[in-house]
Amino acid sequence: MAAMPETGAAGAASPRERYRTQVCAEIKERAWGQLGTAGASALSLNAIAKQMGMSGPALYRYFDSRDALITELIRDAYRSLADTFHAAVADDAHASADGEAEAEAGAGGEAGADADAGRRPDVAVLAYALRRWALADPQRYLLIYGTPVPGYHAPDEVTAIAAEIMTVLLDACAALPLADRPATPFDADLAEHHDWAGGHAAGTPVLRRALAFWTRLHGVLSLELSGHFTGMAFDPGLMFAAEVDDLLAG
Amino acid sequence: MAAMPETGAAGAASPRERYRTQVCAEIKERAWGQLGTAGASALSLNAIAKQMGMSGPALYRYFDSRDALITELIRDAYRSLADTFHAAVADDAHASADGEAEAEAGAGGEAGADADAGRRPDVAVLAYALRRWALADPQRYLLIYGTPVPGYHAPDEVTAIAAEIMTVLLDACAALPLADRPATPFDADLAEHHDWAGGHAAGTPVLRRALAFWTRLHGVLSLELSGHFTGMAFDPGLMFAAEVDDLLAG
Repeated sequence: MAAMPETGAAGAASPRERYRTQVCAEIKERAWGQLGTAGASALSLNAIAKQMGMSGPALYRYFDSRDALITELIRDAYRSLADTFHAAVADDAHASADGEAEAEAGAGGEAGADADAGRRPDVAVLAYALRRWALADPQRYLLIYGTPVPGYHAPDEVTAIAAEIMTVLLDACAALPLADRPATPFDADLAEHHDWAGGHAAGTPVLRRALAFWTRLHGVLSLELSGHFTGMAFDPGLMFAAEVDDLLAG
Repeated sequence: MAAMPETGAAGAASPRERYRTQVCAEIKERAWGQLGTAGASALSLNAIAKQMGMSGPALYRYFDSRDALITELIRDAYRSLADTFHAAVADDAHASADGEAEAEAGAGGEAGADADAGRRPDVAVLAYALRRWALADPQRYLLIYGTPVPGYHAPDEVTAIAAEIMTVLLDACAALPLADRPATPFDADLAEHHDWAGGHAAGTPVLRRALAFWTRLHGVLSLELSGHFTGMAFDPGLMFAAEVDDLLAG
């Protein structure tokens, strides 16, 4: 998680700024460590200050509360997922789909509904990018999508990145062929409540597919990351792939 | 959460036993309070002892570690869900399906795929029972299905109740008509790895449907309970109903 100090001719950081960036990065790294061993609710700025040989007040010049630090971790996590989504869609547009699609699929050799067409739908690209991202750092995934930290409320700046992620997902869902399925009461409800889609031109079936992407893949991933499949012996990657194919089929 | 002391002619509890039961119940009630305000990882036996005017060592005669207390809370939660599932299936078999099915469905009036048949499939009964149970006490739901408590490992006795819940679900799924869908690599995987089904006679499609019930409904419920839909304005109950109908349709 260590952040690189920014360098470059035009925007060269002063030594003081670089020092500040390094200290912030170290504080965040230690905070992630605490999350893993004790959980978010046990996060202690004073304990981090002690580990770093700083006084409490000195550390509070970087993060003035536990919530400010948690916000930074959550923002980093959402930012990382948003960047992962953007990169996955861009990379896939360039890559020769064959090799990648196969590498993606793991043991089962499943590669999304239309691997034959040479290029996977962006929905599948995003799904597998999400899984790689979640498995790479389960704690980061669970910080944003798991049990909320008691007493913590995310500020608007974090909500904005979550909305950016949703837009990438809506674009991907809008590119899929429309499935022929009857409208449900939930479709009617979505037709009236779609402000969360940020004015996206997508119709109700697309909104519904994006939400299903979110809830279903979260369902599999969060239970997997929380260890609920441990001892059940099946391959959660194949379960995930089956859910992705169901989403693609509509 | 207060437990009733057991009474009855044959197994009448001694005053001493009743006192012990009451103290255990109060400790657990205070522990749930701590979970809600500070999270499971901040659970402190000493803080509970202090609140109750007991010494730490006195409290340790009831629960000898934080993990023993968490195990008791998790066991209570699983037991409650297992009892809820048993009761839901039994009650529904007796109830006149009409009124109940409608009451269940909330705003949308959705009542499961075959409400017309007069009796809902047990899968739908279990799904709505799960939702009521989760909404009644989100913290209890998230303790067993949310982000794991760092450093805590559930003992086998808890796993056994989880298996009991799975059996009720497998029975319900086995009673549904088989959906006509192609076998996936995940089906093949499940055909080889089904020990977790505890020798249930159900075939692979039933196992897969039970797992989809679990992951999809957990996906919706856990995001709802964690506040991720807050501000999105749609009705999560209708989203849940749409997922249930999808499961019923196979």
